[in-house]
Amino acid sequence: MPTIRLILEYNGSCFHGWQMQEGLVTVQSELHRVLELVLREKIHVVHASGRTDAGVHARGQVVSFVVSKVPDLHRLTHSVSSILKGALSVTDAAVVPDTFHPRRSAKKKQYSYTILHRKAPAVLDKGYVWHITADLDYEKMREAASCLVGTHDFTSLRAAQCQANSPVKTILESELCLSRDYVVYRVVGKGFLQHMVRIIAGTLIDIGRGRLHSSMPEILAARDRRAGGVTAPPFGLMLDWVDYDDPEVVDSECDDAQE
Amino acid sequence: MPTIRLILEYNGSCFHGWQMQEGLVTVQSELHRVLELVLREKIHVVHASGRTDAGVHARGQVVSFVVSKVPDLHRLTHSVSSILKGALSVTDAAVVPDTFHPRRSAKKKQYSYTILHRKAPAVLDKGYVWHITADLDYEKMREAASCLVGTHDFTSLRAAQCQANSPVKTILESELCLSRDYVVYRVVGKGFLQHMVRIIAGTLIDIGRGRLHSSMPEILAARDRRAGGVTAPPFGLMLDWVDYDDPEVVDSECDDAQE
Repeated sequence: MPTIRLILEYNGSCFHGWQMQEGLVTVQSELHRVLELVLREKIHVVHASGRTDAGVHARGQVVSFVVSKVPDLHRLTHSVSSILKGALSVTDAAVVPDTFHPRRSAKKKQYSYTILHRKAPAVLDKGYVWHITADLDYEKMREAASCLVGTHDFTSLRAAQCQANSPVKTILESELCLSRDYVVYRVVGKGFLQHMVRIIAGTLIDIGRGRLHSSMPEILAARDRRAGGVTAPPFGLMLDWVDYDDPEVVDSECDDAQE
Repeated sequence: MPTIRLILEYNGSCFHGWQMQEGLVTVQSELHRVLELVLREKIHVVHASGRTDAGVHARGQVVSFVVSKVPDLHRLTHSVSSILKGALSVTDAAVVPDTFHPRRSAKKKQYSYTILHRKAPAVLDKGYVWHITADLDYEKMREAASCLVGTHDFTSLRAAQCQANSPVKTILESELCLSRDYVVYRVVGKGFLQHMVRIIAGTLIDIGRGRLHSSMPEILAARDRRAGGVTAPPFGLMLDWVDYDDPEVVDSECDDAQE
């Protein structure tokens, strides 16, 4: 039974997140429905590299599923993108080894969180940015962001209800990029905990606008969600890409937390 | 009577272009209506740096108007942005010398035209890109774009019905930028003729996909609109910024063509 891998771009505002939920339009449920329609066969389950929250966008979500025989991939991508037009596009499709799992095989992934920092409300980027009008101390934010690189206990920066077995995660890159009125927080890691990137973004903003006076190392050391900042709204978050340098490597370190 | 200058960001899909037209929602008519409402006085006319076509977006359109007395600029920008929420934002407001005219005083302006070049349709940038699936020869497009720098007769690359007195314009910068699946054509000039940037973008695409075999110098030399390529759709075009190094310089070279 061949395994098919798709790369997806989607507008998070069109879905109630990745995870299938009774009575809600989610990426997983819509994709499952459309794949069965196009392929005319029962699909067991569609796996994703990470379960994006309601409202979170993706430029490079990676998913996989098993089919009875290799379909016409060109027709498949075209049909799925046409049926879900404007909400979701399939940007790539491939047959991958049976051992491939979009989450467990992932080597690293990048998220970015975009803040529009000016007085005037968003127009061109409406729905893709968190609009902040308060003064921000970029230097403090930059320093706090850079402190996250490495392996840390992220208890202070994950959702209180996060179900992951371990709060320890490794961050490979963590930086603040400034361009015109945009403040973009970019983070690369092997895996993330529930709401982790949104809580990091909210904490950076709270540090920048002077609502949080602890340093990032102090916040991490507290191992208490109350030490961190607000959870930034989902619409500013984008899953940029997931990297699989060696598709044969199956790593079980990543847990199944919703990001 | 003080002159007020505003910088505007707008989503072109919300308006039938800049120019006031009976019975149509245009940027000029909406802005005029809202300014009179907020300032509680009759505004004679609102001038712009250029009359963007229906569907063309702006990140930095510059406009001006005369008022009886200097208003509270903070309140003005906030009120206009709130009333036209999601369609138009005022990103800056200032009192400028009476000699200031957003088009005549402009030293140079930048437009960019964005093409999404891939098989999958647009999702995240829907409404802001021209989706092209055909193969494109980037090198030929790059070369053609670079040939436009300098002073040329743009008869082949302006709308057949363009009313400008002279077809001669000076282009300061003209380049193709490639980034992921995006091909962005960026052009800086003192002024532009009707549909000029959209026709340049369409001509570059026609050269890139092999529909046009003439070189850019040959197309210009023909001085015939039929020598150029298609007019690219308006939604891929963005007025990025207008530059006024010396606000006192009033130059009459720019004509009043719709761009």
